[in-house]
Amino acid sequence: MNFHVSSELDYTLKGPAAFLFSLRCIETGGQQIAAESLVIDPQVASEEFSLVGGMNRFSRIKTLNPGLLKISYHADVSTSTRIVPVQSLNVDGPGNLSPEAIPFLFPSRYCQSDRLRQQAQDMFGHLNTPYDIASGISDWIFEHTAYVSGSSGETSSAVDTLEQRQGVCRDFAHLGIALCRSMSVPARYATCYAHQLNPPDFHACFEVFIDGWWYVFDPTRLAPLNGLVRIATGRDAADAAVCTIFGNPELTRSSVSCDCSDMNFIPVTRDSLAERHELIALL
Amino acid sequence: MNFHVSSELDYTLKGPAAFLFSLRCIETGGQQIAAESLVIDPQVASEEFSLVGGMNRFSRIKTLNPGLLKISYHADVSTSTRIVPVQSLNVDGPGNLSPEAIPFLFPSRYCQSDRLRQQAQDMFGHLNTPYDIASGISDWIFEHTAYVSGSSGETSSAVDTLEQRQGVCRDFAHLGIALCRSMSVPARYATCYAHQLNPPDFHACFEVFIDGWWYVFDPTRLAPLNGLVRIATGRDAADAAVCTIFGNPELTRSSVSCDCSDMNFIPVTRDSLAERHELIALL
Amino acid sequence: MNFHVSSELDYTLKGPAAFLFSLRCIETGGQQIAAESLVIDPQVASEEFSLVGGMNRFSRIKTLNPGLLKISYHADVSTSTRIVPVQSLNVDGPGNLSPEAIPFLFPSRYCQSDRLRQQAQDMFGHLNTPYDIASGISDWIFEHTAYVSGSSGETSSAVDTLEQRQGVCRDFAHLGIALCRSMSVPARYATCYAHQLNPPDFHACFEVFIDGWWYVFDPTRLAPLNGLVRIATGRDAADAAVCTIFGNPELTRSSVSCDCSDMNFIPVTRDSLAERHELIALL
Amino acid sequence: MNFHVSSELDYTLKGPAAFLFSLRCIETGGQQIAAESLVIDPQVASEEFSLVGGMNRFSRIKTLNPGLLKISYHADVSTSTRIVPVQSLNVDGPGNLSPEAIPFLFPSRYCQSDRLRQQAQDMFGHLNTPYDIASGISDWIFEHTAYVSGSSGETSSAVDTLEQRQGVCRDFAHLGIALCRSMSVPARYATCYAHQLNPPDFHACFEVFIDGWWYVFDPTRLAPLNGLVRIATGRDAADAAVCTIFGNPELTRSSVSCDCSDMNFIPVTRDSLAERHELIALL
Repeated sequence: MNFHVSSELDYTLKGPAAFLFSLRCIETGGQQIAAESLVIDPQVASEEFSLVGGMNRFSRIKTLNPGLLKISYHADVSTSTRIVPVQSLNVDGPGNLSPEAIPFLFPSRYCQSDRLRQQAQDMFGHLNTPYDIASGISDWIFEHTAYVSGSSGETSSAVDTLEQRQGVCRDFAHLGIALCRSMSVPARYATCYAHQLNPPDFHACFEVFIDGWWYVFDPTRLAPLNGLVRIATGRDAADAAVCTIFGNPELTRSSVSCDCSDMNFIPVTRDSLAERHELIALL
Repeated sequence: MNFHVSSELDYTLKGPAAFLFSLRCIETGGQQIAAESLVIDPQVASEEFSLVGGMNRFSRIKTLNPGLLKISYHADVSTSTRIVPVQSLNVDGPGNLSPEAIPFLFPSRYCQSDRLRQQAQDMFGHLNTPYDIASGISDWIFEHTAYVSGSSGETSSAVDTLEQRQGVCRDFAHLGIALCRSMSVPARYATCYAHQLNPPDFHACFEVFIDGWWYVFDPTRLAPLNGLVRIATGRDAADAAVCTIFGNPELTRSSVSCDCSDMNFIPVTRDSLAERHELIALL
Repeated sequence: MNFHVSSELDYTLKGPAAFLFSLRCIETGGQQIAAESLVIDPQVASEEFSLVGGMNRFSRIKTLNPGLLKISYHADVSTSTRIVPVQSLNVDGPGNLSPEAIPFLFPSRYCQSDRLRQQAQDMFGHLNTPYDIASGISDWIFEHTAYVSGSSGETSSAVDTLEQRQGVCRDFAHLGIALCRSMSVPARYATCYAHQLNPPDFHACFEVFIDGWWYVFDPTRLAPLNGLVRIATGRDAADAAVCTIFGNPELTRSSVSCDCSDMNFIPVTRDSLAERHELIALL
Repeated sequence: MNFHVSSELDYTLKGPAAFLFSLRCIETGGQQIAAESLVIDPQVASEEFSLVGGMNRFSRIKTLNPGLLKISYHADVSTSTRIVPVQSLNVDGPGNLSPEAIPFLFPSRYCQSDRLRQQAQDMFGHLNTPYDIASGISDWIFEHTAYVSGSSGETSSAVDTLEQRQGVCRDFAHLGIALCRSMSVPARYATCYAHQLNPPDFHACFEVFIDGWWYVFDPTRLAPLNGLVRIATGRDAADAAVCTIFGNPELTRSSVSCDCSDMNFIPVTRDSLAERHELIALL
């Protein structure tokens, strides 16, 4: 699948500031970047690096003077997915997990799986396989949580969302991750550009490690799963925030897009997968 | 400095279980292992690996049958430290930090720095340099928090400890880390064997990134800083728990020791450092 | 039923202090006090009063000097209960509730019913009548919560207990109250002397307002319901703590008893009531 | 002082509902109602009662059918205040407090004073008299908390506000109450109509019991203290919510006013009181 993604962010600067952006798409075995540009206006020094603990490409920008800062990212990205029948999966307990997945069993800032064990057991203890648990959790979140813009904040966590039953994509993903980990199923956070997401914005979903692969779940059901272009992964939003700011700039405008350039984009959705009893991984 | 460290843990197994131990000392530029052994009785399969996001050596053990499991670790380790005068340090803001330190600015499970910004600012906003902030925080914790065995649990976090003003070494370290990060000073968690810790046990302290090095702080003041032998580092105890268990074994005995084999061990303490206006790093 | 109850509390005083005790049994339509004594040694000034918001008898004691303080309460109390068949109850919504019950629909310090509405609805939304809801909640707590002395503290609340699934009688009662109120069923807290409670101690349970009466539920199932002698009621333990201390005395000994002087005490338990489909109120 | 107060609330009803309104002004020694009307359109049955634990006048309304419900309250009220010099006050510890004030030392749902003792002691432990503590707390809240409409919700409590440093009048009052109680100073919640509040709305402030009277503090400093017309008092908003709803009606319009009919209203503010070293009580 081929996508053109973009994000444009304008900030008003009141004094010196440092920004840590995670806007660029990553390259993986299945995701390639044909062309990309990150334009900073005015032109200021920036650095690129990855941080341990996830897949990511951070851009750090320092500014000294008050004024306007415009960040503009554009990229042409090709992605591929892997769709497998559920019945082909082997089932693995924590004793056999690949070590790469183990850190994603641990609790993290916004996914306090250690506090949700009893509730997760009550709700999902009757399910047996990692697939049944993950899809049961994702469906439960969709059915019991309202997507309400502005209902949550930067410090909102899975425990809060389970109590309040409302949030945005970040909160839905955090709750999915926390509940999976509570059931000893490794889960991680992914930020993406998302085709056909309406209104367009950055998106977040979660990935679950089953039989050696990370399969993607989106309890918001707001975008096709094969229309996701990966920006970063991590334990939760603490690892993969789109922007971390040191100082007090103000975001004054943001515009995000993700367009598919293929003629015949056929959306893969939770329902189409469930019907065929399949799973999808972003490669 | 040369140490002999040991830990012996006995578990009663009631059924199949998986253990993830972080008992082995790591090797670093300054810490070498002359000899070590990890004995598992009965002899069961075990694997060794490191997990991303920290410095660590995990041992995974799977058991199938009920009975007794005895883990016994012994090692001869040499360590070295770096002691520097505070006035020699350069001061760096988040805009210039080495990327390796950046993840340790982010909030984590037990160190919710994003929730403590205002309180940290009220308490430590008058301090200017990372050293002043870190040592001010460590001293404040020592003076305002009671060390009470059994007063906290596995889910206790920095927010809880700041409210309750009691805990154990894990809680003291988490609070130090959270408050440092709230003030934009990178901080990480370290588990250690600790010489002259009384009663002997595993120990936890925190390290702060100042001018390119990780300096160690121990707000419990329970052990000499040059008597620490590093087991693991991470964002917090979620990354560096001594033992993570899947299943329901019961710990029935534990014995930990750390003895210095040098004739003339001269303890380096918070007070001796403060008097000479110095800092210490574990290399 | 006739009981002899007693409580003896010894404190070590380190300086001036004020105590607010709720040890004396109250008199109600069905509970009479034949004889009682409250001895304070050394003899210091004390006052007796009731506080609004509950049924109670507080004793306030002020002490100025360090030393030992011994409080000793003894009483002979007769109680009566009302046992009714469940099917005789009328069902009332909040629109018809007697105003005396309305404050017991509101959230309180340790019973944050406003935070548990969604979870209560998920767990008990299939139940229809106040009786079904209250008994369903009480049974669920018994089945899902471990009674563990020392596992909770003075600030533990219903939200904590629902997460941690352990506590003591105070926590069991708070969780029952919070869940009932979340379902729009009025519930209040009661402290009692309890016959056949083992080990002997003060006890706490909850009462639910159904068809004009307050029926008693004890999710710990640790004592017969007809062996309870009422000390106080309130919204939660904030209203009805056995002792509130201003200053820093230390409790050094406590001894509580409740003996039935009737020859043929036949315990009324949750199981005996359930079998006959009945409810019990303390009059 | 003479005021005309009004409140008009429109609801859209989707099915049967019950409302508990606290809109009517109360009568006290110093506050008299010359005329008042509560109009419900369509005309449905309503009841009036007071609930224990505070001063209040509740109106309960039951509706069965979908449609629009309009509540309109108008009243002419005269108020009086008592202004006293701070130096005339006697200082009383909890050992001598009038029993009527004691319940307002206890923690309540939104004022968890039991969780804030250590922080309150750190912040206000240097202050000695109840007046110094209460005014120190009220000033600190004004200086450290941002008034931001929509930043808090129905479940927000003093602990949340202390962490987040933003809220509305309800949150400011809750934090003031919780911190006072943490310092053993009785404090209660008051809802009012408020002259010169801009934009006009219901208002909340807190009252502190000093030397036998309840003096009023408003950490928002948004309205003159002698322009307050009392609706209700209680331990916190759980006792004195303007409207508690059972069912799911939606508030579609609200309009509140409070006009002074005296020619020469001279505002009494925190600053004018501080300058003259005085306190004000609503009688």
